[in-house]
Amino acid sequence: MTVNVLFAASAERWEDYETTLKSALEQAGVDADLRTEFPPEEVDYIVYAPSSWLQDFTPYTRCKAVLNLWAGVENVVGNATLTQPLCRMVDDEGLTQSMMEWVVGHTLRLHLGMDLHIHGQDGKWRKYAPPVSQDRPVTILGLGALGQACGQALAGLGFPVTGWSRTEKEVEGLTCLHGDDGLVRALEGAQIVVLLLPHTPQTENTLNAETLALLPKGAMILNPGRGALIEDTALLAALESGQIAHAVLDTFRKEPLPVMHPYWAHEKVTVTPHIAATTRPETASRVIAENIRRGEAGEPLLHVVERGAGY
Amino acid sequence: MTVNVLFAASAERWEDYETTLKSALEQAGVDADLRTEFPPEEVDYIVYAPSSWLQDFTPYTRCKAVLNLWAGVENVVGNATLTQPLCRMVDDEGLTQSMMEWVVGHTLRLHLGMDLHIHGQDGKWRKYAPPVSQDRPVTILGLGALGQACGQALAGLGFPVTGWSRTEKEVEGLTCLHGDDGLVRALEGAQIVVLLLPHTPQTENTLNAETLALLPKGAMILNPGRGALIEDTALLAALESGQIAHAVLDTFRKEPLPVMHPYWAHEKVTVTPHIAATTRPETASRVIAENIRRGEAGEPLLHVVERGAGY
Repeated sequence: MTVNVLFAASAERWEDYETTLKSALEQAGVDADLRTEFPPEEVDYIVYAPSSWLQDFTPYTRCKAVLNLWAGVENVVGNATLTQPLCRMVDDEGLTQSMMEWVVGHTLRLHLGMDLHIHGQDGKWRKYAPPVSQDRPVTILGLGALGQACGQALAGLGFPVTGWSRTEKEVEGLTCLHGDDGLVRALEGAQIVVLLLPHTPQTENTLNAETLALLPKGAMILNPGRGALIEDTALLAALESGQIAHAVLDTFRKEPLPVMHPYWAHEKVTVTPHIAATTRPETASRVIAENIRRGEAGEPLLHVVERGAGY
Repeated sequence: MTVNVLFAASAERWEDYETTLKSALEQAGVDADLRTEFPPEEVDYIVYAPSSWLQDFTPYTRCKAVLNLWAGVENVVGNATLTQPLCRMVDDEGLTQSMMEWVVGHTLRLHLGMDLHIHGQDGKWRKYAPPVSQDRPVTILGLGALGQACGQALAGLGFPVTGWSRTEKEVEGLTCLHGDDGLVRALEGAQIVVLLLPHTPQTENTLNAETLALLPKGAMILNPGRGALIEDTALLAALESGQIAHAVLDTFRKEPLPVMHPYWAHEKVTVTPHIAATTRPETASRVIAENIRRGEAGEPLLHVVERGAGY
């Protein structure tokens, strides 16, 4: 029997999701009719975002579950009309994969000196050849799931990768260091540093005037982790002095990064708008489709929100 | 005993090689004195480039071998004063590795839409998220050593990779197609195409008006192979129509690419100056050091030029 799926997120999201969600449902073996409008009493599942026009769930009497496209549910979990199971988006595949791609891509961009050519399309034949990756040591600060995935991908391409974590860890293919002494050694040997630590009182300003000075002159930095891991004034000073040759920053203390922030205009800084790891329509669609398949098969839904706890 | 090594390539090369060659000799366990000047009769090995000031080898009576930094020896092999063994540079490690890095780097650049941010440092928060690599099919035309290495590296990062060759081949991790029918299928499914075919009468203009039209609209092209693989007017027309969204070109029919060539000024083209695969000081130094180690140990030298054959 055909399952009626109401897409109740914004029209902009519909553009992103229409094709991918239909194909994910088909691949999951669900015979679904996916639309942005239905008579409420005919709807079996609602694909949702808290910013939706749909705020009164009362008329959706047949609806078996509300499937959120966002990880955050704080703006829907308190809705008293919502009596159906509510599922959060947990797109591990998309988040880890996209983070790995962003880190590897920008590491290779800096390593290869690509910008010389991207900016230099003026007829001048600039024959600069970088070292091979074997001679470009990379240090990853933070060895959680994201740090491990990025480190191993870079090691697979030939970069000598050192991983650092506060407490001792072992990751195949990486030289692992830990603690305060380990941090000094991890930075002293790094030409490219990737920040993938969580933001805690201990990790705040991990890169500051003192630690930036440990790096070899001309080192480069990627920060797809958290804005507060870097002391911004110290980084700007290190860029000015040439101690740091380039920084690619995806996270900031305030987002969106204010238009007047010096990072925007700095020629040695690339700002990316917190996109390194984001939910992707393709992978998120697979998560939604899997939950509808489970609902139809009578299996337990994944990532159901505990209403009392609020997450 | 200390081995005297004369570096007789240009001063510019000395800058590139001084440190790497010294460290490669040390790592090879050779106690060497490396300099740009020696009394000729004290020289044990000559590190050479055909453009060198050194053209008369007669006074180098003790010299055991001339080690060329270039793969090409056509401008030295006919030198009648050269009676010592002459070795070519065969830097497979550097060539394959640097090609793989260039291909993976520019594939990720196009895939992630990096240029949007590299060019867009104007304070606007452009929150574009690309698909994950699993949803970005890549086709490699040419499955020699370079095509295989690039294809497998991309597959390792999650891209679905199709490899095409004229005759049937099998490469682990890649979907392999061959022949004329296979080429049609390989192009129809590709969002990014990498050209790594040799230049032969059969491969000339592999990408032409007809084959470019097989690609999905908005496909992107990398050509680190040979300039003649692409019919330039057809590519320019396909860029104009939007059929091709971007081309990163490292090889051209005429090099350096003439200043007035339309590729230079085209906003959808990135020209790189034939750098994708080049001999790298780090890896080439290891090849030179290994040959000196062999010479001192009485082992046969690698890549000795057959004078009669001229290569």
